[in-house]
Amino acid sequence: MNTLTDIISAIRSLDRAIMEQAAVWQNGLVKPRGSLGRLETLGIHLAGISKTLHPYYKRKQVIVMAADHGAYEEGIASAPQIVTAIQAMNMLQGNTGVCVLARNAGAEVLPVDMGIDADPIDGLRNCKIRRGSSNFTRGPAMTRDEALQAITCGATLAIEQVKEGVQLLGLGELGMGNTTAAAAIVSVLCQVMPEDVVGRGANLPEAQMPTKIDVVRRAIAINNPDLADGVDVMAKVGGFELAGMAGVIIGGAAAGVPVVLDGFLSYSAALVACKIAPVVHDYLIPSHFSAEKGARIALDQLQLKAFFDMEMRLGEGSGAAMMFPFIDAACAVMNQMGTLADAQIVLPD
Amino acid sequence: MNTLTDIISAIRSLDRAIMEQAAVWQNGLVKPRGSLGRLETLGIHLAGISKTLHPYYKRKQVIVMAADHGAYEEGIASAPQIVTAIQAMNMLQGNTGVCVLARNAGAEVLPVDMGIDADPIDGLRNCKIRRGSSNFTRGPAMTRDEALQAITCGATLAIEQVKEGVQLLGLGELGMGNTTAAAAIVSVLCQVMPEDVVGRGANLPEAQMPTKIDVVRRAIAINNPDLADGVDVMAKVGGFELAGMAGVIIGGAAAGVPVVLDGFLSYSAALVACKIAPVVHDYLIPSHFSAEKGARIALDQLQLKAFFDMEMRLGEGSGAAMMFPFIDAACAVMNQMGTLADAQIVLPD
Repeated sequence: MNTLTDIISAIRSLDRAIMEQAAVWQNGLVKPRGSLGRLETLGIHLAGISKTLHPYYKRKQVIVMAADHGAYEEGIASAPQIVTAIQAMNMLQGNTGVCVLARNAGAEVLPVDMGIDADPIDGLRNCKIRRGSSNFTRGPAMTRDEALQAITCGATLAIEQVKEGVQLLGLGELGMGNTTAAAAIVSVLCQVMPEDVVGRGANLPEAQMPTKIDVVRRAIAINNPDLADGVDVMAKVGGFELAGMAGVIIGGAAAGVPVVLDGFLSYSAALVACKIAPVVHDYLIPSHFSAEKGARIALDQLQLKAFFDMEMRLGEGSGAAMMFPFIDAACAVMNQMGTLADAQIVLPD
Repeated sequence: MNTLTDIISAIRSLDRAIMEQAAVWQNGLVKPRGSLGRLETLGIHLAGISKTLHPYYKRKQVIVMAADHGAYEEGIASAPQIVTAIQAMNMLQGNTGVCVLARNAGAEVLPVDMGIDADPIDGLRNCKIRRGSSNFTRGPAMTRDEALQAITCGATLAIEQVKEGVQLLGLGELGMGNTTAAAAIVSVLCQVMPEDVVGRGANLPEAQMPTKIDVVRRAIAINNPDLADGVDVMAKVGGFELAGMAGVIIGGAAAGVPVVLDGFLSYSAALVACKIAPVVHDYLIPSHFSAEKGARIALDQLQLKAFFDMEMRLGEGSGAAMMFPFIDAACAVMNQMGTLADAQIVLPD
């Protein structure tokens, strides 16, 4: 396995020359200039990532990172903790939300055990760091070495999948209590108060919201993460699946493929990945606007604008899967539309 | 051909009983309640339209209504008028924006000549009322009989297509200068000033905007359309393709299939259709938020909320085609997701 440093050093910026050509190409297609709006700029972005005027992604995959959280015991989630393991098994059955939506988009789902608090599950990709992170209200969620290991596992996995033919990656996750860890990361890296970014997660009762906010506040206070150090933030107040997602971003960027964000959990992973290696930002494609409370703050900090708002907050990578047809559409425009010249249409500038 | 009155009398309201069952079904799927947001409510809406707990639309079609406008001569559009005919021919080649996006979504495109100012085009469905509407700054765009004929043609065509197996309809259009007519309709039916709803259309230079606003103002002043009478509004300040689109909405509703809106032109047609037969509202599925200026006012009046905003303003039905994968996704959730009961997961209420 390459070290994380080696992987990061392989990441290249967008190909600006191709992007300029792509912009010219868009202007020559049989439509008023700019009339396809963000579908055009998305196509140009994809051209810059994939270094071709004609991007096309046949094999698309959502990597679903799963782990449990020691802080679960603080009463921050309403679903039983065992649901992490149950849903990981359901991912193998193909009947979870992300599986259904990925299939609808012609994409695969790869569920990964990054640290589920259960014995390894048959058929599930095993990258388990350990059975659940530590309760970060009492100390760091994981050691720095564990955080680096989880990030590197995610990066290595993404690179491996691209080598095996995957051309486009989506981020997904599974982990009871993980919006608490994500809120802690976002609170630290966006320098906002916990109450501004702690949301209802998976229908946490309103009455438990003060507890969830207090858990984030205590986690940050006791661990004092260094906001200049993404690995430190992830280790102290993150989670194994969030670390794995940050790794997928870094590995996807190193392998030169677009990485499609999902919702709030993915925003927190992206904030960490961008802190560790700012160049990964070039490879991030937003998808939906998460209905979780801190979404606006996190996306603004990432300087990204969601493409659609379905008021979704399922996680799992469901929003990333919903974005895939838009990406196909952006490619189809560049690859299949006729040109003004061929149609003998002259439009004023 | 049935009369429009007969067609309208065949329209049924949503099946509320099925919708209640669908809501219960959504709550039993293996996800936190409500966590798929508008994808869930969309699925429930589709169930109510299609009167089944398991809606599924294999054959999807965008009907692209094309016509020219007499008011073109007032200097309201930047593209040559002949582009309407050229793009109608390109629709048959399959290389326009909507054709590419529909293909990407597994859908068909049916282009229709409602009144192109050219001889009939080989292979193009011919419902031509006449070669272009009249210049509505000097009198009505069309007679009341012509408006009724165009609306009825659209409705009959939609019913015919559904009989031939189409299960989901999208609205599209083509017509140089038609955002001017749409703005006039929206101005009348939303009771707002022309300057509030007249937009740039297909890149009209800023310098010509006062002219376009003035054309709308004069069209309304000279024709004095009756805002209580949708047919009167369409006849006086509309266009043949917009009338055809209103007809597709009415016919689609009568045939019991969802009708997916596109952008600003489709909003104007929907406002007229809802004025003529309010029950059609049950069958309308919004898609994108058009970048044309009057979009917010028109959608608010329709009491509809767009699902995505790609800053698109191409028209043609491009936004409707982009919505189809979301509709497939909403159906897939209802048809393919596992249940909490099967997964032996108990979530608190």
